[in-house]
Amino acid sequence: MQDILNKKDFKVVKEGITYPEGIKAAGVKCGIRFNRKDLALIYSEKIANAWGTFTTNKFKAAPLVVTEKNLSLSGGKLQAVLINSGIANACTGEKGLEDAWEMADYVSQGLKIKKEYVAVTSTGKIGEFLPLKKIKASLKEVILKLSTSGGTKAAEAILTTDTKKKEIAVSFKLGEQEVKIGGIAKGSGMIHPNMATMLGFITSDISIKGKLLQEALQQVVEKSFNMISVDGDTSTNDMVLLMANGLAGNKLIDKKDTDYYKFLNVLQYMAEYLAKCIAKDGEGATKMIEVEVKNALSFAKAKKVAKAVINSPLVKTAIFGKDPNWGRILAAVGYSGAEIIPDKVDLYLKEKIVENGQPLKFSRQALHEYLKLSNEIKILIDLKMGKESATAWGCDLTYDYVKINTKYN
Amino acid sequence: MQDILNKKDFKVVKEGITYPEGIKAAGVKCGIRFNRKDLALIYSEKIANAWGTFTTNKFKAAPLVVTEKNLSLSGGKLQAVLINSGIANACTGEKGLEDAWEMADYVSQGLKIKKEYVAVTSTGKIGEFLPLKKIKASLKEVILKLSTSGGTKAAEAILTTDTKKKEIAVSFKLGEQEVKIGGIAKGSGMIHPNMATMLGFITSDISIKGKLLQEALQQVVEKSFNMISVDGDTSTNDMVLLMANGLAGNKLIDKKDTDYYKFLNVLQYMAEYLAKCIAKDGEGATKMIEVEVKNALSFAKAKKVAKAVINSPLVKTAIFGKDPNWGRILAAVGYSGAEIIPDKVDLYLKEKIVENGQPLKFSRQALHEYLKLSNEIKILIDLKMGKESATAWGCDLTYDYVKINTKYN
Repeated sequence: MQDILNKKDFKVVKEGITYPEGIKAAGVKCGIRFNRKDLALIYSEKIANAWGTFTTNKFKAAPLVVTEKNLSLSGGKLQAVLINSGIANACTGEKGLEDAWEMADYVSQGLKIKKEYVAVTSTGKIGEFLPLKKIKASLKEVILKLSTSGGTKAAEAILTTDTKKKEIAVSFKLGEQEVKIGGIAKGSGMIHPNMATMLGFITSDISIKGKLLQEALQQVVEKSFNMISVDGDTSTNDMVLLMANGLAGNKLIDKKDTDYYKFLNVLQYMAEYLAKCIAKDGEGATKMIEVEVKNALSFAKAKKVAKAVINSPLVKTAIFGKDPNWGRILAAVGYSGAEIIPDKVDLYLKEKIVENGQPLKFSRQALHEYLKLSNEIKILIDLKMGKESATAWGCDLTYDYVKINTKYN
Repeated sequence: MQDILNKKDFKVVKEGITYPEGIKAAGVKCGIRFNRKDLALIYSEKIANAWGTFTTNKFKAAPLVVTEKNLSLSGGKLQAVLINSGIANACTGEKGLEDAWEMADYVSQGLKIKKEYVAVTSTGKIGEFLPLKKIKASLKEVILKLSTSGGTKAAEAILTTDTKKKEIAVSFKLGEQEVKIGGIAKGSGMIHPNMATMLGFITSDISIKGKLLQEALQQVVEKSFNMISVDGDTSTNDMVLLMANGLAGNKLIDKKDTDYYKFLNVLQYMAEYLAKCIAKDGEGATKMIEVEVKNALSFAKAKKVAKAVINSPLVKTAIFGKDPNWGRILAAVGYSGAEIIPDKVDLYLKEKIVENGQPLKFSRQALHEYLKLSNEIKILIDLKMGKESATAWGCDLTYDYVKINTKYN
């Protein structure tokens, strides 16, 4: 990716999905979860170019099937997304699929928009049917509450075991026009996307051709949401959706010009921010872990190594224990399946502690202090073989992860 | 494998590696670990046909390099194996390799046997050098203590975080001759063999050609030690060694006849027993989990599914929590990477609870009771696609796993 946009070239604000022109949202309690918001609606006044990336899990949940189908029927256009939390509508067979279509129907009727402009998403328990009556009964309310300040409520309504809402918005200039992008996401278990239930929704008022929007989303997801892992479990419901309604009035982006790369850069920044929020808020996590692998022969190989380290329960428990156990890191590098030369591998944890596959002298106490005081632990692995790099984000493995997952609520 | 030997056709005894004729062993304290046995020696009076399987981790520990080299130099023959626990001699570079060779030298000199008849193995912390002086100083003692009743002490000396020693011995008849096999093993973290530090040593007095011994070991390891997982981390030091000294006096097995398959069956039984001992004694484990996948298109595909389920932190924590969370099991099946048809998958947990990818009505309370009262949880997944099956063994993920691994001792 061309690096033509510095962070100073764009402005970051906290809220959220409704920041772009013409985007409204709302989040309400429909009664699936006990006394918590559990139904969110995102709406674009103008039909938006849109694209999505979906789980690779073979048990793909019903709402993903519906959303993919609608994106295909509409030729990559959407106007509304309805999301419920609490029940995932996964492993629910024919009835589940009918339910997902019915959810989309409610939205289409309620907002008076074409059916194929509706995306639906569910997150929560697998194998239970949606309480359609509750959703239908709350639909009027959620539509009535749609507003340009409803982003945060939507961000809250999509959460399950997350402890924090995840939202961000950014604006930047294309020519004279200010372009805005907003995003919300949720984690926080079964997170190992290829696409976890990891959900991400990004809206923008940018004017961009559908094909380029699609390409931008795919490229950005690969290096953000697809690089996080809480537990190595890939959910049945992962989805990231991007909508762009063109209301910013910038000159339509129809080729990979400077404007396109500016947009790509900002999108990458936002996707990475949201992905890191998910990693930080992983179930039971006390620390975020960042693993950067550099000088690999290919991005795919760098990714394999980064993912093996970020997924290793032994590395994750060591970091929870503030134990600079570099041997576990190297072991994970070694079993990653990627081509490496053990005698070349350097490892940095705050400082260089392994050179050419062997430990240097370092102060165990100083590293222990670093692990104790930092909430974001950075591990850098230099393979010294090629020029490609990859960065993955995850979290430590703690008593609370076990506690949260011994019984799902 | 031909199933020509019933369990009643062979006799199982508890001890151990020294049960076969001509095998002696000993275990002593050499001072690497604090006041615990940490040095074991296994010795065959007669030069034995031998073979080994070794870790696929690219950071292969030095003693494995030495043992592989000696097996190659000797043409598949061994007479002694020296094992230390406490330090793994992995990621120790040139010096580590020299140290491993020196360990082998001590044994060769002490027992007055050819260098290439010596195997060496280490298990424990990665990245520290062996205290060779301590090992050398204790070598006389461990040789002096070699005896036909020393198997249990050897089984104790190879342990690290294991809570129980793992040993078994079996005898069966080939013609008029009684043939004996003995084995010991250790787990219990970084266990996800392709070859984990999982160590297994099996001795026999059977008379069998080296080539067939090798083939038998490879086949058996693939469906026993390589099918267990504690945490999905593959160690740098995994090794399984098999020695057969021929002292039983049976007619030499030189082709795949009935005798060969009898031996293979007994070997499979033993390897599976030891592998399950490791799974049961996984770090912090309260329950063993067995995942059988049947009617897959190939063994490799069945294995992929079984391994994905046995490795899933969400499945492991659910079972620790006695929660019949079948959705997590299906999700793991779905992301395993194996070819499956979601709408065909049946799942049994005590009883059939999922049919054709969808939940049946079952008593959650009854299943909760089953999970509460059983120490061995069986999960059966029927893919209904082909005829191949695979079984994997693992354990639940508990507070104690986290506790044990926050600081390695």
